[in-house]
Amino acid sequence: MFLTIGELINSTRDEVKKALKEKDEDFIRKLAREQHEAGADAIDLNAGESRDEEKNDMDWLIDIVEDEIDDVRIAIDTPDPEVLEFGLEKVRNKPVINSISNEDDKAAAREVASGYDADIIGLAMGEEGMPQTVEDRLNETEALLEKCDKLGIDKDQLYVDVIAMTIGSNQEQGQYVIDSVRGIKEKLGVKTNIGLSNVSFGLPNRALINRTVFAMLLEAGLDAALIDPTDTEMMDTLKAAEALLGEDKSCLGYLKYIRSK
Amino acid sequence: MFLTIGELINSTRDEVKKALKEKDEDFIRKLAREQHEAGADAIDLNAGESRDEEKNDMDWLIDIVEDEIDDVRIAIDTPDPEVLEFGLEKVRNKPVINSISNEDDKAAAREVASGYDADIIGLAMGEEGMPQTVEDRLNETEALLEKCDKLGIDKDQLYVDVIAMTIGSNQEQGQYVIDSVRGIKEKLGVKTNIGLSNVSFGLPNRALINRTVFAMLLEAGLDAALIDPTDTEMMDTLKAAEALLGEDKSCLGYLKYIRSK
Repeated sequence: MFLTIGELINSTRDEVKKALKEKDEDFIRKLAREQHEAGADAIDLNAGESRDEEKNDMDWLIDIVEDEIDDVRIAIDTPDPEVLEFGLEKVRNKPVINSISNEDDKAAAREVASGYDADIIGLAMGEEGMPQTVEDRLNETEALLEKCDKLGIDKDQLYVDVIAMTIGSNQEQGQYVIDSVRGIKEKLGVKTNIGLSNVSFGLPNRALINRTVFAMLLEAGLDAALIDPTDTEMMDTLKAAEALLGEDKSCLGYLKYIRSK
Repeated sequence: MFLTIGELINSTRDEVKKALKEKDEDFIRKLAREQHEAGADAIDLNAGESRDEEKNDMDWLIDIVEDEIDDVRIAIDTPDPEVLEFGLEKVRNKPVINSISNEDDKAAAREVASGYDADIIGLAMGEEGMPQTVEDRLNETEALLEKCDKLGIDKDQLYVDVIAMTIGSNQEQGQYVIDSVRGIKEKLGVKTNIGLSNVSFGLPNRALINRTVFAMLLEAGLDAALIDPTDTEMMDTLKAAEALLGEDKSCLGYLKYIRSK
């Protein structure tokens, strides 16, 4: 089962930052509802731009989103291990942790993550900074797996994020993320994730680039993605890919999806 | 360079069959022009449904299409070796042969094909009929390569057609054609082709299925396809894929394409 994480409630987006400041409950409810109805399995919550108020804002966001959608799963998206722990304690259903990494100064987040029954996004990134090549990503993943193993984090909980970069300035990064998904799955037997829209940053018609690389990544074996599920081309692509890759028996899910539109 | 073959002038389509019967020159000119302007590198011409008149109709089609577009390349699409030879002698620019196969009773077509400087679509199909598995397709390709080698057909002329079947009735055929493209390229070092729209036959929203599998096939290394180039989603996908796969330096082709729309 593919894990679709709705990325829209993120404080780096101006309208969300404003809604957090003004405590615009209706706006957050609408964003949560729309993503849920479009097919998101989990809703990402990021209040990082609120700084000193991050914990309070995360508290407020969780209350609203859990009130709006009964069976919602929440992805706690924070660089602060204290906010992470707070969110993990608070949420009703099995959370997603967004994210841990292989960086030395992220030991506290890894420690917190190890204490919960959660799906965990683990960035293929360590002390060397952003990985460039496929080999970099494989090496960081191996190192991260080792750290997780020591903490008792089950390999099956992990979704390794392959670190998407825009092809606008690094042409080779498109093929690199695809090959990384394939390589991490085949060589290390662990699930993969991507923050997909980064691939098209700075280019025109981003939805076209996003849906095209999404199809390629799904064929390579991608297991999860942070996407805008209200971009209908993305969910269209996911449903078509499931039918094409034999994961949707007799195309029944595809037929139901097309009829429902 | 990807080879896009426009599939629309095909006598199995009712309107084309009618145009051939009524010698509706304007209709054929329009179909050729539209496909050319949408980005087709070659225009497929099929008059097979005209039966006794096939050769005359092919003659008429080539005259019209070459008059309409100066630098057009034509794909001669016929099961009749005599019509094939006639077309190959007649066309102005380097033709595409659509197609030869590994079948015993297609020896005459292979023989004709060996005498021309043409790109040749070779079906991965022999006496066993339609191939089912990836292994079937690899075996038929190997046997075809051997036959071509004996006739002096250069491996570089060949585009092996991986024989698309609908996922509507054979769910596993989506992954099979993708794996066949990858396998034929990697193991046998020969280019590949597909008659793409067959994949979605019988399903709703065929354009969605077509563009999604097209992205996957391009990532797998597909070199040519018979498609409807006036389906803008297909050409959009091709341009986005070239940018994503590093075949379009600095995304310049993509930027130009998007601006021209």
